Order: sequence, then C-alpha cells, then structure tokens
Amino acid sequence: MTLDRSWFTEPMESTGTAFSLKAEKVHEEQTPYQKIEIFKTETFGWLMTIDGCTMVSTRDNFLYHEMMSHPALNSHPNPKNVVIVGGGDCGTLREVLRHPEVASATQVEIDERVTRLAEQYFPELCEKNADPRATLFFGDGIQWMKDAKPGSIDLIIIDSTDPVGPAEGLFGKKFYLDCIKALGPDGMLVQQSESPLLHLGLIKEMHQAMREAGFVQTHLLHFPQVIYPSGWWSASIACKKAGPLASRLDEAAIAALDAQFYNADTHRAAFALPTYVRKALGA
Amino acid sequence: MTLDRSWFTEPMESTGTAFSLKAEKVHEEQTPYQKIEIFKTETFGWLMTIDGCTMVSTRDNFLYHEMMSHPALNSHPNPKNVVIVGGGDCGTLREVLRHPEVASATQVEIDERVTRLAEQYFPELCEKNADPRATLFFGDGIQWMKDAKPGSIDLIIIDSTDPVGPAEGLFGKKFYLDCIKALGPDGMLVQQSESPLLHLGLIKEMHQAMREAGFVQTHLLHFPQVIYPSGWWSASIACKKAGPLASRLDEAAIAALDAQFYNADTHRAAFALPTYVRKALGA
Repeated sequence: MTLDRSWFTEPMESTGTAFSLKAEKVHEEQTPYQKIEIFKTETFGWLMTIDGCTMVSTRDNFLYHEMMSHPALNSHPNPKNVVIVGGGDCGTLREVLRHPEVASATQVEIDERVTRLAEQYFPELCEKNADPRATLFFGDGIQWMKDAKPGSIDLIIIDSTDPVGPAEGLFGKKFYLDCIKALGPDGMLVQQSESPLLHLGLIKEMHQAMREAGFVQTHLLHFPQVIYPSGWWSASIACKKAGPLASRLDEAAIAALDAQFYNADTHRAAFALPTYVRKALGA
Repeated sequence: MTLDRSWFTEPMESTGTAFSLKAEKVHEEQTPYQKIEIFKTETFGWLMTIDGCTMVSTRDNFLYHEMMSHPALNSHPNPKNVVIVGGGDCGTLREVLRHPEVASATQVEIDERVTRLAEQYFPELCEKNADPRATLFFGDGIQWMKDAKPGSIDLIIIDSTDPVGPAEGLFGKKFYLDCIKALGPDGMLVQQSESPLLHLGLIKEMHQAMREAGFVQTHLLHFPQVIYPSGWWSASIACKKAGPLASRLDEAAIAALDAQFYNADTHRAAFALPTYVRKALGA
C-alpha cells in the first residue's frame, strides 16, 4: 500500500529502505547550505529534516544525543574542553554540559538557522545555551579545526549530517589530521557513523581513515535511533593514546546526568559488538 | 514525498510510523488464518509479510532469531525439551537446534502455509527441519499448551505475530497459566514483546500478566530488528524459579553456535536496560 500526504517519508534509494512519520509540515526554508523543514508529527512531537533527511524529533532524540556524548565523555580521563562540530540543534551541547568536569563546550555549526529553529521548536534542547561554559559559533567546522590552537581540545564530537553535501569534508583523513593537531595528548574524537547494518562499509572506511591520520585506536558503539535509517545507529571513538578507554562509571555521577537511555549498563552494552561487526572491523 | 508502487510499506496507524522496502510482490495468498505475501526486495533479499506486517527478511532475520533463542537457552540451567509456539518460518527452530544440549524441539505453528512458503523462499531457515530432534506440528498453540504433559517442557519460545488476530490469545494470563503447568520446575518462557520505544505499555502489561499467572521473575532483553516498527525490538523472559538467570556463556560453546549477532558480550548487553525502561518496569 502507498501512504497519502498525511505522512512525511524519507526514502533512501541507496539502501532500499524508507521511514515515515505521520506528520504535517509547518515550516520550510532554504538556507545558503541546505533545505530545512519542520513537521508536527502525530506521535513523535516536532521533527526537523535537512534536505529531506530526518535530523531530530522530540520523542527519540534522547537516544542519539545521550549516546553521542556520555560514553565518550566517560571514556576520556579528564574532558575539560569539548568542541562539537555540527550539532546545531544544541541537544549534544546540552548533554555535554550536564558533566560538571567540562569547563568549556564550543558548538561549531555551519548553519545558524538550524539553531534558531531548534530554539523555536526544540527549546528543551537549547536550555543550556546560556550556560557560561557554552560558546555558540556559527561557521565552517573544517576551517575552525584548521585554525584551532594545537593541543587545546580534549574531546571533539562530530555531530553532523550524513557524509554528503556540507558534511562530506568531516569524514576523512584530511579533517582527522587537523583534529589530531587540535587535540591534547589524551585527546579523543567521537563521530556519528551511521547504521551498523546498512553502512558497515562506511564505518570500516572511517576507522581506517582515523588510523591513517594517526589515531592509534578506534572503537565502535551502537544504540537504537528510531528515526534514522534502520532504527539502529552507531558512533565511532578515535583515540590519540593507546590503552583501554577510561571508564568513569560511578553510579552517583551517572544518576546526576538525569539521562533517559544512558546508564552504566547501557554504556557497557553500547560497546558490545555483534559478531559480524567484530569480524568486519577486525576487532 | 510519497513512495511509488515500487515500494512495500507497512504503515502503523497506532504508532504513527511506517517502514518501507523497495520490493516487488511475487506471491500472495489468503490462508484460513491470514494473508501471506512474499516480496523480492532490492536490498533485503526475500520478505514475507502477514496481514501487511513484515515478518521475516533474508537480510536481517538473524537479529531476531538469534536473540529469541540463544539468550534464553543460555539462561536456562538445562534446556532439554524446547517448544516453539508460532515461528513457522523455522528460523527460531534452526537456532534452537544449534544447541547440542537440546534433546527435542517442537514447533507448534497454526498455519502450515507459513512453513511451506519458508521452505520455498527461506530454505536456509529450514535447514534443520529434518534434524531427528525436530518435530513440526501444525495446529493451535493455545490448545496444544492446554494438552501438554505437565512438567514436560524446559523452555517455551513464543515466536508469534503481534497481539492481534490469531496471536492475541498468546498474550495474557490465561495462556501463561497453561505454560506454567507444562513447564518443569526450572521452566522458562521467552516471548517476543514488541518495541521498547513504541510499546512500553504492552511490555509492562505482559510482565504483569506473567507474574499474575505465577512466574516469579520477568526479564526484558532488547536488540535491533530493522524491519520491525522502530527498528528496535524486545523479548521477555519469565521464570518459574527465583534466583539469577543461569549464564552459560563459555566462549567455545558460543563460537560453535556460529551466530552473526549473538556472542557473550551481546548476550549481556541485551539485558542492559535503558533508564526509562527500568523505571517503567520497576526493575
């Protein structure tokens, strides 16, 4: 059966899959970078799409935002200075700033309109934007990273769209080399890395590029993300230093994060790789 | 945008979500119980649907079949006699029979046509049907369980469609009471229990009904299942006996299962509950 116009649909020709939400469009604009649309869905709250791809919904963004920030922050021995590349909806920034050990968090988003629309439709994600530790910078993340003071960052979170269009340059050795330079000796990078079922080849290429750039270790974590293709998503962590990831999993600190998905158990679970993924990554 | 007729779509009005696969229908029949359709998809191999709902695809069925069988089998101290209610595609039966400790596995499927079509389109799932330990019975699982010899079963796996139509009677206290009677003293039941995001209320009701029927413990496990609504699925384990679940996780035995998703790490990870699920279940 086919869906009528009361549904938003994201068809992905490359994977032969599509996801739909019952929704009504309430806003649409073309920015210098991309087309942003806002929908009022029947069951997922507000939905923002960019160039036809789902970005963030009220109902399920906690999965992605928590898992893009807490596992990496709790794997770094001392994450004081954090930079988010992309992440214009401010949801990752909010999660990062739940960590008292973070002294500064800078969000580098190319398209200011993403943030302005998030302030309007997802105010709960923007509730830490006025935190004195937060800086919102609007500009090109690739150039920003080139210009960053060497050794000044502890954790880089790359919270971007898919590796096509404006985000393409954020996936690959050239950008990772600039990240390594900007990171301190314990530095880590975490990047959204698509679906463990649909995009395993891409994940493999990303890890290879990270290692070629000079990161000595890469790790994959995975978690549900309902509105993204396949409903199953991943992030990749790259480390400048060898050795096991730190694991600051004290229950009191984790309870204080007030997370909905994340806890010490789901932290460990996220790093438990399916056998076919282990084999593909040679892990 | 809307999808043209080159896509199969399962819209779920109750959850406001829909999933689609690029696919061409190759077979359709109405059985006494339900409408079965077979599609040739572009990227997921063959797809079987029942009454318009995705049941099984070549590409991703390993997720569901492995996680419906191995965690429960490795949580029971000595699972000799296993009964599968539903499971007509034979994929769960195949996984169960990978365990050398299983002495008999009986599949009780109401609709023989599901199995006959699986033999045709999913022969790999049927490769253990001729195993001397396997019995394929076609008939009503509810009646079968009523008539089962008391104390004769170690593990019941309820691998059914959603709790509407023919499968409705498999969810609820009345059926669970018959299961308890049929189970031995260490007996366990595992049942597919829908999406942890979309159907949390149903999961809660299931666990409550299981406990009201006399199971002393219930556990939830969760895993990705791409073609099912939300891409995130769960199973519930109910135990007759109190105490921690056994955990027969020796790496050599697990490697011999030749599973694609399941291993000792993903076993443990499946039981790691998100904070909001813990709260909802009072876990």
